[in-house]
Amino acid sequence: MPELRKNIITREWVIMAKERGKRPEDFHKKYEKIEQDKNNIIKNCPFCPGNEVMTPDVILSYSHCETNKKSDWDVKVIPNKFPALLDIDQNKSKKSTEGIYDILNGVGKHEVIIESSEHFTDIPFMEISHLECIISVYYERYIKLMQQSDLEHIIIFRNHGPDAGTSLAHPHSQLIATPVMPRDIFMETNGARLYYEYEQKCPFCHMINFEDQAGERKICENDSFVSINPFFSRYPFETWILPRRHNASFGNINLHEGNDLARIIHETTSKLYKCLKDPSYNLTLNSLVRGEKFAESYHWHFKIIPRITTSAGFELGTGMYINTIAPEDAAKFLIL
Amino acid sequence: MPELRKNIITREWVIMAKERGKRPEDFHKKYEKIEQDKNNIIKNCPFCPGNEVMTPDVILSYSHCETNKKSDWDVKVIPNKFPALLDIDQNKSKKSTEGIYDILNGVGKHEVIIESSEHFTDIPFMEISHLECIISVYYERYIKLMQQSDLEHIIIFRNHGPDAGTSLAHPHSQLIATPVMPRDIFMETNGARLYYEYEQKCPFCHMINFEDQAGERKICENDSFVSINPFFSRYPFETWILPRRHNASFGNINLHEGNDLARIIHETTSKLYKCLKDPSYNLTLNSLVRGEKFAESYHWHFKIIPRITTSAGFELGTGMYINTIAPEDAAKFLIL
Repeated sequence: MPELRKNIITREWVIMAKERGKRPEDFHKKYEKIEQDKNNIIKNCPFCPGNEVMTPDVILSYSHCETNKKSDWDVKVIPNKFPALLDIDQNKSKKSTEGIYDILNGVGKHEVIIESSEHFTDIPFMEISHLECIISVYYERYIKLMQQSDLEHIIIFRNHGPDAGTSLAHPHSQLIATPVMPRDIFMETNGARLYYEYEQKCPFCHMINFEDQAGERKICENDSFVSINPFFSRYPFETWILPRRHNASFGNINLHEGNDLARIIHETTSKLYKCLKDPSYNLTLNSLVRGEKFAESYHWHFKIIPRITTSAGFELGTGMYINTIAPEDAAKFLIL
Repeated sequence: MPELRKNIITREWVIMAKERGKRPEDFHKKYEKIEQDKNNIIKNCPFCPGNEVMTPDVILSYSHCETNKKSDWDVKVIPNKFPALLDIDQNKSKKSTEGIYDILNGVGKHEVIIESSEHFTDIPFMEISHLECIISVYYERYIKLMQQSDLEHIIIFRNHGPDAGTSLAHPHSQLIATPVMPRDIFMETNGARLYYEYEQKCPFCHMINFEDQAGERKICENDSFVSINPFFSRYPFETWILPRRHNASFGNINLHEGNDLARIIHETTSKLYKCLKDPSYNLTLNSLVRGEKFAESYHWHFKIIPRITTSAGFELGTGMYINTIAPEDAAKFLIL
């Protein structure tokens, strides 16, 4: 069973998931490639239609999103076959110690959202209506799992391209729900609260207002959202998609916002695709499942981190980043 | 001039160093390769003997370390030609704001330690006496710069191999001194102090004692140091080199410890080289320049992070890590 182990110095939790991993010897070869042929349905791809037997039972399925149907589903959610955390509904949460160290059973949720029955596609090539379906699926899983009081945090993320750590090319996202609050979410929520206490303003709302005036870091926008390269971007072309309406949780979006979210994700990733020639990137949903305590200070959002540079010793040793592209220049380049 | 920009939410500082970077268009091609031929001196390598004209003036040079001399220096320190921070002795530190954001002039120190006149070598192939010279050079620069009260932190780090973010193959380390305390050092020092307040023990000393008994995560050791895969390793084969004598600062090591440090770095990196077939890795020195406040709770050390996996959306979005190799298994494999 996977374990959560606590760093005794920083008190951050680490997921130790041996079952998910390779043996030490296997690290000599770095990348595994899946076998691909020229057909649109890939024999070895567990996410392609016809290969449903390769994956666990479906949790949720949508079948009314695509115009050219290839299967009886268009977007579906399955449990991750190699989960980082075992299903909390079937495995007990349990604390233990090993000498001076604290351990928790590695339980939570780890799901995969297969975004399309089509293997060779990606967000920029999807219809907006299809993306609206994906957002609806994100939302349905999010509000379902946020009701479980033993889950402290839920992240939905998307790894696109080989440099973003993905092992399967078929378009998909993942959801991981943890029984503890992750380090950076803890820092962000507490930092936002301190800002609020001092300024009586949510720092994210403050940023949106300022960037609306400044203009130079804005990439695109619509009624409900704005995409910007933040003033303090850690990575070249780091992009945040911020909802204009203040809210601590993605679980509170309305239908109009859901549709606008589909449109702004499409527009933002299309700009990255075009200007950076299909870069690898990670997209992450930062949101609180129990936002009451931070209702006024936290503000849910998406972050997109293009993986076009490699973090080195300075970044890994200090947690401080060197960014060689100012966000003003990144935005100028992306809106060309 | 580079800038330090503060994240208004987490209050972490980011170095914005445009001058160091490529233009946005250049990110399409990922890696630059230096031209290499089969001679031991490389025409285009700025760190090879004979090419001194390609680099700035020498800060410090050692010439009595190597037995087979190829040049009038064996280890030397130069300013980084493309610094992330400008020299604080020649450029003023200055605060400013841009609307709601805080900015500091990007000043500090950014130096390169060229570890050998030999291009095609690395730590496992160096004599211990040569490594002792490198440690002496680290030490000399560290204690020199720690006297400057306007430098809040100094990190020495080493990027080895293409996946560790290095651009030059010639063996070298870097030193970056910052006018602010970096995020992870802040977290580690404050976490250690809280641990000390509660347990009346330095957490690092506590780890060393426990791992001496447990044995299963120890890789190698000598009089002054122990190398372990920490119980809460974030990365497969993450390795810490811990001094047995409690001290907050590397600036306080004695000659015997310096020599033992050369030996344990040699032994540890040789094991990684052999067992993981010359993996890319980052080596970082975590140490406090002004350790008085944390004299009892912080404990300087080196961390080695092999770059054999790719962090993905979960890690980047939460700061929480999934490690698929338990440190006990890593240590077992490394001591084979």
